Amino acid sequence: MILEGRSFPIEFGVVEEQGTPGCQVSDICFHWDQFREAVSWADVVTFEFENVDEKALLLAEEEGKLFPGIKAIKAKKDRREERKLLSSLGLPVPRWYPAEDGEEALRILKDQFNNVGVIKAARGGYDGKGQFYVNGSTVPELRESKEPYVVEEFVDFDYEASVIGVRGKEGQFVSYPESFNVNVKGILLYSFGPTGDERMTLYVKRLAERLDYVGTLGVEFFVRGNEVLINEYAPRVHNTGHHTLDAARTSQFENHIRAILGLPLGETEVHSAYGTVNVLGLQEPPIDVLKYGKLYWYGKKEARKRRKMGHINVLGRDLGEVREKIDKVMSLLYPAGPDL
Amino acid sequence: MILEGRSFPIEFGVVEEQGTPGCQVSDICFHWDQFREAVSWADVVTFEFENVDEKALLLAEEEGKLFPGIKAIKAKKDRREERKLLSSLGLPVPRWYPAEDGEEALRILKDQFNNVGVIKAARGGYDGKGQFYVNGSTVPELRESKEPYVVEEFVDFDYEASVIGVRGKEGQFVSYPESFNVNVKGILLYSFGPTGDERMTLYVKRLAERLDYVGTLGVEFFVRGNEVLINEYAPRVHNTGHHTLDAARTSQFENHIRAILGLPLGETEVHSAYGTVNVLGLQEPPIDVLKYGKLYWYGKKEARKRRKMGHINVLGRDLGEVREKIDKVMSLLYPAGPDL
Repeated sequence: MILEGRSFPIEFGVVEEQGTPGCQVSDICFHWDQFREAVSWADVVTFEFENVDEKALLLAEEEGKLFPGIKAIKAKKDRREERKLLSSLGLPVPRWYPAEDGEEALRILKDQFNNVGVIKAARGGYDGKGQFYVNGSTVPELRESKEPYVVEEFVDFDYEASVIGVRGKEGQFVSYPESFNVNVKGILLYSFGPTGDERMTLYVKRLAERLDYVGTLGVEFFVRGNEVLINEYAPRVHNTGHHTLDAARTSQFENHIRAILGLPLGETEVHSAYGTVNVLGLQEPPIDVLKYGKLYWYGKKEARKRRKMGHINVLGRDLGEVREKIDKVMSLLYPAGPDL
Repeated sequence: MILEGRSFPIEFGVVEEQGTPGCQVSDICFHWDQFREAVSWADVVTFEFENVDEKALLLAEEEGKLFPGIKAIKAKKDRREERKLLSSLGLPVPRWYPAEDGEEALRILKDQFNNVGVIKAARGGYDGKGQFYVNGSTVPELRESKEPYVVEEFVDFDYEASVIGVRGKEGQFVSYPESFNVNVKGILLYSFGPTGDERMTLYVKRLAERLDYVGTLGVEFFVRGNEVLINEYAPRVHNTGHHTLDAARTSQFENHIRAILGLPLGETEVHSAYGTVNVLGLQEPPIDVLKYGKLYWYGKKEARKRRKMGHINVLGRDLGEVREKIDKVMSLLYPAGPDL
């Protein structure tokens, strides 16, 4: 986001650990215990991950500097609230029930779903963490858990998709074409597009309006036959929108910055078919991937299993060319298949 | 160039004055008197402007770190050498003669060109500096000059164009489609494309090969009827290639970095019609230009007349859409016309 914003005459500060990616490219790097100074220094405050110290976000909101605002994050703190919000907007979601603890979750799964479904931690889940896919088996670790859960039907989807939208301070809304996403064990492996379903765009717009949203947001969908269900939304730039760096007239990152600064939003037209492949858990990328596309390396110090270390964007005249490049990049990155 | 290279796992140092644009985004900023440390620190040395302290370049060349090499710059130090080089390669140039000083230049202009032509300083010219267009008049200031010159026919061209090429360490060559350039008083006001003339691409390739060139280079042409003449070449990324940041699969900047690091070159296909408008001499850009394209603001401290402060890239489905956007951006930037 900072790199995409460098073409504007503005300065960037980040609140982060020293030496981590944001600090490598920002003008100022604040420690987490300096968040008050950071908020005071900034004219506008945003975030690229919503699960951060709430005190900092609340302070920025109080001072009228936080975009998107707390409202957009609130429902994300608890999956039950998110589901309620989406349902209240008439947006289609998988059939679901809230559970106060693990025991209740298991009971609901049995009573309502015949022991086939998904139990998701209501709080703190990310990249598939805290999610249990149950198919007739038991989950002993849940029985003792005192955490709240959401119990959902297992959606046997045809594919997963997402739409990235951007809403400006005056309520103007733009969006990018849909991406087709391939997730493995709850983590995005690759995505491509454009595909298209106007319903998705309408749902994203409705959600953004209800949240008084300012900035870029991503919404993930399950597509099952003719049915489109919302899986979840992300109040930030989104992994499935990284292709916009190369395939769209304006990237999701630049449009986020334009939105939160109250500048005119940029054109979101895509000019090429596109794909993004995540580099997961590798300490360095094989050089030959550069033959097929553009590398974005995040500069994280340590590679861990499943950790997103970078991504590769590929472009093509059509989806065929894109799929071919994705295959080539995948076999260079993961000759023995991804270790997830 | 640094911003485009940030997606690779490499570090950047610049030799420049503190606080100037390169230093704002590099990992290390060296003073000019520290150039020895800089060359020693770096694995690879390049430049984005060839008229810099030759000692630094020579040292880097000596250590085998300079790309492109001294050979590519040498002919640029003296316009007479550049003309000789191009002529020796069988590349078409305007009719020209070397002159030892201003007096000889004026005599040649009279004898060979009937007092209608162009006298260009052999050394140190840039953005139209040191160029005299003569049409029957006299140029008193030249009479006393002891500097060498090149005297050329005045080319009444239909249009000016340029081609950006990239040559890799193994001799592989790629190029971008031609741009149509509008220069005023020797400085680029705007450019657009794609247009196309395969001869130009062949000429660029031939020149790059002869120079053992590694990296991105730009070659400027005059087009007169069916005739293509080389005006000059630039051994670096070029102002008329800035559109590649948004219109091509890989930018001229990223491809320069790929080339000098010996990495595979990126695809140069353009996916949209494109235009670039230079922001000349303005302290800040009007916000409304963002409606039509992407702003690249260079972060130079002080705006001076004719100084390039940034540029705006516009994209379109065809040249019509691009021309319309260029007109809109031009009228926002220069409501009373550009002051050059």
